[in-house]
Amino acid sequence: MAHFQRIAVVGAGLIGGSVLLAAHRRRLAAGFRSWSRSEAARETLRGYSAGEVCASEAECVAGADLVVVATPVDSAEATFRAIGPHLAPGCLVTDAGSVKAAVVKAARSALPAGVKFVGAHPMAGSEKAGAKHADATLFEKRTCYVTPDGTESRGAVERVHAFWRSLGCVTEETDPETHDALVAAVSHLPHAAASVLMLAVADNPGFRPEAAGSGLRDTTRVAAGEEHLWVGILMDNAERVAAGLGALEARSAALREALRKRDAEAVRRILAEARRLRQSLDRPA
Amino acid sequence: MAHFQRIAVVGAGLIGGSVLLAAHRRRLAAGFRSWSRSEAARETLRGYSAGEVCASEAECVAGADLVVVATPVDSAEATFRAIGPHLAPGCLVTDAGSVKAAVVKAARSALPAGVKFVGAHPMAGSEKAGAKHADATLFEKRTCYVTPDGTESRGAVERVHAFWRSLGCVTEETDPETHDALVAAVSHLPHAAASVLMLAVADNPGFRPEAAGSGLRDTTRVAAGEEHLWVGILMDNAERVAAGLGALEARSAALREALRKRDAEAVRRILAEARRLRQSLDRPA
Repeated sequence: MAHFQRIAVVGAGLIGGSVLLAAHRRRLAAGFRSWSRSEAARETLRGYSAGEVCASEAECVAGADLVVVATPVDSAEATFRAIGPHLAPGCLVTDAGSVKAAVVKAARSALPAGVKFVGAHPMAGSEKAGAKHADATLFEKRTCYVTPDGTESRGAVERVHAFWRSLGCVTEETDPETHDALVAAVSHLPHAAASVLMLAVADNPGFRPEAAGSGLRDTTRVAAGEEHLWVGILMDNAERVAAGLGALEARSAALREALRKRDAEAVRRILAEARRLRQSLDRPA
Repeated sequence: MAHFQRIAVVGAGLIGGSVLLAAHRRRLAAGFRSWSRSEAARETLRGYSAGEVCASEAECVAGADLVVVATPVDSAEATFRAIGPHLAPGCLVTDAGSVKAAVVKAARSALPAGVKFVGAHPMAGSEKAGAKHADATLFEKRTCYVTPDGTESRGAVERVHAFWRSLGCVTEETDPETHDALVAAVSHLPHAAASVLMLAVADNPGFRPEAAGSGLRDTTRVAAGEEHLWVGILMDNAERVAAGLGALEARSAALREALRKRDAEAVRRILAEARRLRQSLDRPA
């Protein structure tokens, strides 16, 4: 099990707060500090009695030997610049951002030499946001991608694997670009599609919200997520998500044409291929 | 509570089988008969010990004073033609089809004079199919639309309301066209969208099925449904579903363009509007 003198969590919302609670419960460090931008979130964090809650990023990271950055991905570079001058030499830094190429690049340019950064992405979260929904069990059995770009020491990479495994994750290693292509397919495109579907449903003249059943609710559930986090995620993976939306439009147009032509066999083939693919998600790999 | 001499369920799969079990448990009739096209389903039905399981539609409906047609919507007209000559005079017929204009029209042309048909659509079901998944509690608290076209006697309409309420449904009355526009929005378009999203996700070069998380699973869950039922549903509501897919493509293209232009504010507005709409589904009407 990883063990540290002091763990600092910078940006303790749903994910960062859950890192703090999980690491504190497992006693992964002798001391803990956390910081969140809003006073309301800091008040919530104080209620957790999981170490010191700090009023600035600088105070939060001072003296820490492990820093976990969990601010929204569009704030990652600003966070790295803010904490950089205050990091202890040799400090290990990881993050929890949903995109990796842009974040790893930002870390390389914004963090000082002598600090070890290894990116990570725990596949956990929900449509809930904020420190008040933090949960020490959030990471149990969840995949966490560890995404070295080849410039890190193997020792630093292994310590980051061990840290996320200590929180309950199953870690997998991949490079940042491969990671971003994967999450574009399995996470970012579904999120974007759920949002545009919700809008298209409401465009329909027959729509009545009170008639929504489990099909519509499930299909659009992730679109209930706060947009602030997701704007940054989609923007940092914009090319791939845009390409995925293009594929969605082409697949939709093919089904639309089959319906317009009343071609039942073409409709059946489309639905059958989708069913087989969907069922393959539930088969063990 | 509705009470009948004999209830016949024609096409006892997931929905029809659940009607049979719910009506039998509540003793809504002195006798019950059911029929399913496949011998395997009939074997399952015999195991339920809920009345006689018949080898033909004709035998099933003979002497019944309530007939529930629960065959796939693309078989509705053929079912009406098969049972028509064998229905008792004055018999009440309802159905459980997910589209109503086409089914009501088929009933008007295919059922003999002297038989009372009132269409209905219980909003229940799942990605599971078949009599083996039948469940006596399937209809509890679920909305059931009763869709008279204005040619029925008020007494027949009220008896059909009472029957579906007896199974646990909350009934609402609407005309067939209004019903079909509503379910196009809240059920058929989400189903079609989940299917095309699953195909688009798999088109993505980074896709790996074993990396699917809850976001992708929820967003595409309904696409796991057997295509046989859904081809008929989408074909019977083809114009509206095609229009909905057109709206989906337009909404997707707008988000795609915002991403391509790196217009974070436009992306934020799209996600925020979708979030507000999605959250409105969870507010009491």
